[in-house]
Amino acid sequence: MVSVIGYYTTRFGELWDKSLYDLVAESIRGVLQETKLSAKQIDAVFIGNMLAGVLENNLHSTSKVAEILDTHIPVFRAEAACASGGMAFHLGTKYLEANAGKTVLVLGAEKMTDYSPEETTTALIGAASGEEQGAGLTFPGLYALMAQVYLQKYGYSRDVLSYVSYKNHYHGSLNDKAHFQKKITLEQARKSAVVAAPLGVMDCSPISDGAAALILTADQPLSRKNKSIRVLSSEVASDAISLKNRAYIDGIEATKIAADKAFDKARITRSQVGVAEVHDCFTIAELFAMEGLGFWKRGEAGKRITALDTMLGSGGKLIINTSGGLKAAGHPVGATGIKQVGEIYLQLTGQAGKRQVEKAHYGLAHNVGGSGGTAVISIFKTL
Amino acid sequence: MVSVIGYYTTRFGELWDKSLYDLVAESIRGVLQETKLSAKQIDAVFIGNMLAGVLENNLHSTSKVAEILDTHIPVFRAEAACASGGMAFHLGTKYLEANAGKTVLVLGAEKMTDYSPEETTTALIGAASGEEQGAGLTFPGLYALMAQVYLQKYGYSRDVLSYVSYKNHYHGSLNDKAHFQKKITLEQARKSAVVAAPLGVMDCSPISDGAAALILTADQPLSRKNKSIRVLSSEVASDAISLKNRAYIDGIEATKIAADKAFDKARITRSQVGVAEVHDCFTIAELFAMEGLGFWKRGEAGKRITALDTMLGSGGKLIINTSGGLKAAGHPVGATGIKQVGEIYLQLTGQAGKRQVEKAHYGLAHNVGGSGGTAVISIFKTL
Repeated sequence: MVSVIGYYTTRFGELWDKSLYDLVAESIRGVLQETKLSAKQIDAVFIGNMLAGVLENNLHSTSKVAEILDTHIPVFRAEAACASGGMAFHLGTKYLEANAGKTVLVLGAEKMTDYSPEETTTALIGAASGEEQGAGLTFPGLYALMAQVYLQKYGYSRDVLSYVSYKNHYHGSLNDKAHFQKKITLEQARKSAVVAAPLGVMDCSPISDGAAALILTADQPLSRKNKSIRVLSSEVASDAISLKNRAYIDGIEATKIAADKAFDKARITRSQVGVAEVHDCFTIAELFAMEGLGFWKRGEAGKRITALDTMLGSGGKLIINTSGGLKAAGHPVGATGIKQVGEIYLQLTGQAGKRQVEKAHYGLAHNVGGSGGTAVISIFKTL
Repeated sequence: MVSVIGYYTTRFGELWDKSLYDLVAESIRGVLQETKLSAKQIDAVFIGNMLAGVLENNLHSTSKVAEILDTHIPVFRAEAACASGGMAFHLGTKYLEANAGKTVLVLGAEKMTDYSPEETTTALIGAASGEEQGAGLTFPGLYALMAQVYLQKYGYSRDVLSYVSYKNHYHGSLNDKAHFQKKITLEQARKSAVVAAPLGVMDCSPISDGAAALILTADQPLSRKNKSIRVLSSEVASDAISLKNRAYIDGIEATKIAADKAFDKARITRSQVGVAEVHDCFTIAELFAMEGLGFWKRGEAGKRITALDTMLGSGGKLIINTSGGLKAAGHPVGATGIKQVGEIYLQLTGQAGKRQVEKAHYGLAHNVGGSGGTAVISIFKTL
């Protein structure tokens, strides 16, 4: 059995004075300090990063991490676009299943704000197919296409999307590591300038810098039992990179496939989950997530979200994106999947402070790559 | 126990008429056909690729591979510079150790010749530290520095390097998938134009396109027993990315560390290995490999290589780089680590044709990232 025994995240945001490896080093120092482990007690490292190659000609990050740790242990880099962090986490759990008694460091990092918006946007669309890139599509454009189909098919107006933004910004206001820590009104979300119809500025996650790190162990006596959670399952599903080659685009099928497997393996029901971090790169993506994960039925999310019972303080039984989600906590791509697991870790160990969810024993993290070509879903339990 | 049950490689070379994913698709088709498996019998895929992000803004290759396979199974990308293929292979073996009864596809691919030499060279140096990049160092430059230290310390002339090139070009002449299939003389190697002293053109591996694929299974009844080999061990070691932060630079310490672990785990001695593919990105690197792997003592390789008893037909007990190595078979970065394992597979199953080594029961593959920041070593046995 694999356990998460510690977590540290840097502030997410526009961190002009920090380089990628400043952030990586801070997250490593932070998580080692938190768990009182030394670098010598780590057996392997997994790092999720998407863009350092393209943006700063910085590949072989594995060796750079070894240099920071001053170690000869194996270091692996996972890349699957915005699911890079989730994939690093997943591979870390598999590694531990094959290596009982070991301890691994799993981290994710991204530095996105040292470049022009054009450079960063162009690099990001590297996660889509060549044909989609050639057609001039950007990420807001891809999700806008999907949103159009969804809203038209089920008869919703663009307004329903605002509830996701409103809720997640409220959660972000309670998270001192979030990129945006400011509440917004439903009206502000609704009236934000259109980026790619039907998506407005307030429907889009930001370009952020940040790094996050976790410590995982397998079959170890846990000295920090009250600060540990169990990984019940971690599953990955893929889909075609091109929207045109998907079974449907008013949702993300990879999420559904990975979720079915993950719940099966965890042997729990959807209703047992009390807290989840889901991939809201755009507001529409949170609706897709809630349906794909099986929390809500297909086509129903546009209505269900307006009840706002996934918001802290609502009294709802399933609270979503307490970190602020990608929307408000920020989306330093490679770090996102790690932060999601970290937020669930904080919630299930009662360390979430002002945004603590009551009585949650099971949590879930859901990370998506690109427009849905990759989904990673992990389910956790308190000890 | 993990077994390799099939291998396919495309031709390596300047393949102007083929894209990265043409090569990936060919390698997948080839290995499925070879093993008579359908895509539905594969449980996960690992792909090694270094440069597609930087050179063609092509990230999220995991999802693209899922599209080619028309599948929803997990696909993982490993990147560790020139060791990307070896890392994909290593992660594939770990995945199988955690998932008995499964079958995985492991592939590596690189498309390098559609760009100007400046573009490709600049992208490649992304594997070195920012400081080394800023100093204007290229890969030949880094290895030239290491070669200078080695040759001076042990009192060898540049001439000893020619033997590696001579031998590997001879081996390449027997490999119809090799980039270069032409023998050269010792004289030609010795007199080749200097690229970065002491390294000449004939000391450098070429810029190549290519893809290679393997099928691995764990704890499966093997229907192709006479065409299968066992993975006895696969070990990874890291080192600092910067030469200045290494314990020594007249050799590659990561190779030594990974080799000691790999031989320990495989429970065989160096002298039992009959055939090995080692990472000869430059001729000096083959000397470092022979010493780091423990086949030859430190400082001795400059002399030992001149005996040419690691060459096919020499009657030597350990034959090195029968594929032609990176030097003659070519070095499509992500594909290299997979081709190395594939060559050992061909040798140990008696399918190596004109370059078949006699009576080898144990083989080794050795893949290095950058100037030595990563080393992956895997040891194999006939069934």
